[in-house]
Amino acid sequence: MKLASLKSARDGQLLVVNQDLSRCIDASDIAPTLQAALDNWSVCAPLLEARHQALTKQTASGMTFEAGRCASPLPRAFHWADASAYVNHVELVRKARNAEMPATFWTDPLMYQGGSDCFIGPTDAIDLIDESWGLDFEAEVAVVLDDVPMGVSVEQAAHHIVLLMLVNDISLRNLIPAELAKGFGFYQSKPSSAFSPVAVSLDELGDHWLDGKLHLPLRARLNETLIGEPNAGQDMTFDFPTLISHAAKTRPLCAGTIIGSGTVSNLDRSKGSCCLAEVRMLEIFADGKATTEFLQVGDRVRIDMLDNQAQSIFGSIDQQVQRYSRVT
Amino acid sequence: MKLASLKSARDGQLLVVNQDLSRCIDASDIAPTLQAALDNWSVCAPLLEARHQALTKQTASGMTFEAGRCASPLPRAFHWADASAYVNHVELVRKARNAEMPATFWTDPLMYQGGSDCFIGPTDAIDLIDESWGLDFEAEVAVVLDDVPMGVSVEQAAHHIVLLMLVNDISLRNLIPAELAKGFGFYQSKPSSAFSPVAVSLDELGDHWLDGKLHLPLRARLNETLIGEPNAGQDMTFDFPTLISHAAKTRPLCAGTIIGSGTVSNLDRSKGSCCLAEVRMLEIFADGKATTEFLQVGDRVRIDMLDNQAQSIFGSIDQQVQRYSRVT
Repeated sequence: MKLASLKSARDGQLLVVNQDLSRCIDASDIAPTLQAALDNWSVCAPLLEARHQALTKQTASGMTFEAGRCASPLPRAFHWADASAYVNHVELVRKARNAEMPATFWTDPLMYQGGSDCFIGPTDAIDLIDESWGLDFEAEVAVVLDDVPMGVSVEQAAHHIVLLMLVNDISLRNLIPAELAKGFGFYQSKPSSAFSPVAVSLDELGDHWLDGKLHLPLRARLNETLIGEPNAGQDMTFDFPTLISHAAKTRPLCAGTIIGSGTVSNLDRSKGSCCLAEVRMLEIFADGKATTEFLQVGDRVRIDMLDNQAQSIFGSIDQQVQRYSRVT
Repeated sequence: MKLASLKSARDGQLLVVNQDLSRCIDASDIAPTLQAALDNWSVCAPLLEARHQALTKQTASGMTFEAGRCASPLPRAFHWADASAYVNHVELVRKARNAEMPATFWTDPLMYQGGSDCFIGPTDAIDLIDESWGLDFEAEVAVVLDDVPMGVSVEQAAHHIVLLMLVNDISLRNLIPAELAKGFGFYQSKPSSAFSPVAVSLDELGDHWLDGKLHLPLRARLNETLIGEPNAGQDMTFDFPTLISHAAKTRPLCAGTIIGSGTVSNLDRSKGSCCLAEVRMLEIFADGKATTEFLQVGDRVRIDMLDNQAQSIFGSIDQQVQRYSRVT
């Protein structure tokens, strides 16, 4: 099944969406919001699945699905932790600044806690105060979990994945070095993220969901230019169950927790990149300097994933950068 | 007014509590949960205040208040960011490991994003898998906010503080060095935090709330030993409005955001400490080695704050460490 949240109040109104994203139907009688459904997932999931079947078989009428009227599937969440599971990408970042990568990075996942109180919608503008901050997109895959006990094993963790989404993990690259140098991790350099219009259950992904990874190309476009379409199932050093077990080592994870993959990146450079920072690093290696600029006001970023029939699975994250006037 | 959350479902049931914490009254007809009240604060706050007045004047009957039946005021929150605003404490930590502190630490706040999906209750046990992880408490003050726009000024930020609480920011000290060395900040080393039974509006604090700081001693006890009672209003380098403005530099903050002060610490060492790590650092300076152990299974931590009449303002965080069996 596919689920979305119509913009409404703070937490949206739960919708069931059909396979080709053309039709949808209200599901707020089953659970008013996606978070409410996740809070009571074992009861709600079969009901939502039945509604999805009815919509598919056209025994329920529904209405036209409009991604532009949707919030992120979880308009706000209690837990958003983003990993950096494509370690070749991390190695590249380090190499670009002549820093060696510790060998443990291949065995011990990198993960940071992100801001989850104000996600922006999939087609909402990205508000930017200052272009000199180095605004970048990061195209990623993310999983949504039911309740996960503290100390969960990798094997058990796999059973707690209930939905998948795409993410634009928006980053302010020029704020990162000074912030990380302070030692407490990202905060100001990672403003609100945006998620795909639709969250999708594992059965919708067929054979593409295998070994805790999603084996399909993730497409990132800037204005009319394809920036990359690396396969999210390739070169992912840590699969999602491993990331979940890492996250739950010292605490339980509440239903509705979102775990991100980090920027998707393939060793095969012909596949392009899922963020501008990687494009710039490759330019530095090739030409000694980066020529691609970070995002400017007016730029448009699109992130999506197509199935074998060239059908968008999650809908498009489609965002334009706009200038924000600082409140005083 | 004083507010608490009776343990009930995932988000508790909103209670209004009287000044001396002896009586309380249901407020779930005004808003079912504290988060719901914060989501609609301008409407709910006057209604909650009126209920508080009725309880105080005994025109509303109420029932006995039992902190042991309470969750943290926000049992889960969408945003929990913890600062390290007592910079002399940070300097001490650094000195103990012979690391110089950058001068910018006096002007640019340290802040990390904490896990907020599963706060533990004020009198709940602290579940510990492994004593070798170096479990420590950190006694702090925290503010709860209404909606804060991105780019808010320090001056305006002060107007967004609606409630205060105490925090036990539980830390796993022996996991911190390796985690911070990875560069992404705290994650496994900062498990679920606990908050005081009661959240308190600013008017309850009278003259003790001044210049964006809470000027009262914060008391931390381990078993029957007083560990410290430094004044939270002294030596706080960054006041709460400054911390809020820092947090909102690149994103808005959703209603119900919690901002913590970091471990309270005074330059006057006779006031003791609000965490065991500081006790151990002072032992290292004095004797060349730390003799105080981190928390063991069975240890009891109490954190509270008394007013001039020796009346507990927030109720006590009162937690015992218990062994947790790892799920496989």
